[in-house]
Amino acid sequence: MPSALILIADGTEEMEFTITYDTLVRGGVKATSAYVPDVNTATPQRVSPPTAKCSRGVHIMPDTYFDLSSCGPDLYDLLVIPGGAKGAETMSKHPSVQELIRRYIERNKLVGMICAGSLAAKTAKLPRQPLTSHPSVKVELEQEFEYLEEPVVVSNNLVTSRGPGTAFPFALTLVELLCGSERREEIRGPMVFPPHTPF
Amino acid sequence: MPSALILIADGTEEMEFTITYDTLVRGGVKATSAYVPDVNTATPQRVSPPTAKCSRGVHIMPDTYFDLSSCGPDLYDLLVIPGGAKGAETMSKHPSVQELIRRYIERNKLVGMICAGSLAAKTAKLPRQPLTSHPSVKVELEQEFEYLEEPVVVSNNLVTSRGPGTAFPFALTLVELLCGSERREEIRGPMVFPPHTPF
Repeated sequence: MPSALILIADGTEEMEFTITYDTLVRGGVKATSAYVPDVNTATPQRVSPPTAKCSRGVHIMPDTYFDLSSCGPDLYDLLVIPGGAKGAETMSKHPSVQELIRRYIERNKLVGMICAGSLAAKTAKLPRQPLTSHPSVKVELEQEFEYLEEPVVVSNNLVTSRGPGTAFPFALTLVELLCGSERREEIRGPMVFPPHTPF
Repeated sequence: MPSALILIADGTEEMEFTITYDTLVRGGVKATSAYVPDVNTATPQRVSPPTAKCSRGVHIMPDTYFDLSSCGPDLYDLLVIPGGAKGAETMSKHPSVQELIRRYIERNKLVGMICAGSLAAKTAKLPRQPLTSHPSVKVELEQEFEYLEEPVVVSNNLVTSRGPGTAFPFALTLVELLCGSERREEIRGPMVFPPHTPF
């Protein structure tokens, strides 16, 4: 069974997080969420259970805490960085998250970034390659990457996407890459997309 | 500022819940989630904070507990019943939820139901009218209602929809009904739907 680690922080975009987690589970992927604390907090404390206050006020309880040693590519096949301005900033500026992204790419595992989450490709110093993001952070990425405006961009093992409105095709693409195109089609039907939905 | 009460229970479909909550907040609606306990549980207990284990394993902390006296149409403009088989069963079989739905309709407030959440239209004994739901529960509804297969059906103050794949047009329709069509268009752009998305 393929497995995925989905990061979450205060300020994470709850639709992007939830659509990705839920769709991966529907696809047969074992999903685990890990809470990333803000390293700028003066006295970061581990409250129990961990909770993330997301960008529009939904409170989500992550499955575990982020920890470099227990979140590596030896344990998961996919690492996901969701958007939401504040959450993406927390993740992209976290040195251990940057290191984790490089380890996944080096080990030939998948990394997915959506919305402002794509900023982590820059802070992790990934090489120049095709990429997309939320339009609001395009200016921060278009120098270092081959910036595209497609809903989902697959560049070797890096999968990037644009916002809540592209979260379904992003998640379905991840299911396809981990489980195959037949599985993607199997789970798409019961989700009941409107006719002529382009994904 | 319009306000919305969104019910949540163990087994609620987390995408339907989160897309509705988040999109309403983006539209300028004050959203509150309320946890509905399973009345069949032998010893229902109020744990603090309340937590809902959703249909694909995401744990969400609701804003408050469901209570007939504090969830009425005097306090909110919209009541939402999300899907997810187990969560929708808990809500639709709960006598106080049934009573709440009737009170919202009687007071000319909006009621939204999506996916299996539409079963609550039947258990609340709403009159025969146009309605849709997840295809899996169509057989339970098509006798009592004028069953349609549109992504979103607006029947006076009852708004129904089909599944996670129609949650965005469902939520955007609710924003339009509460805040106007201009607001709907304002928030749609930054969500970055793929070109030719039919909503």
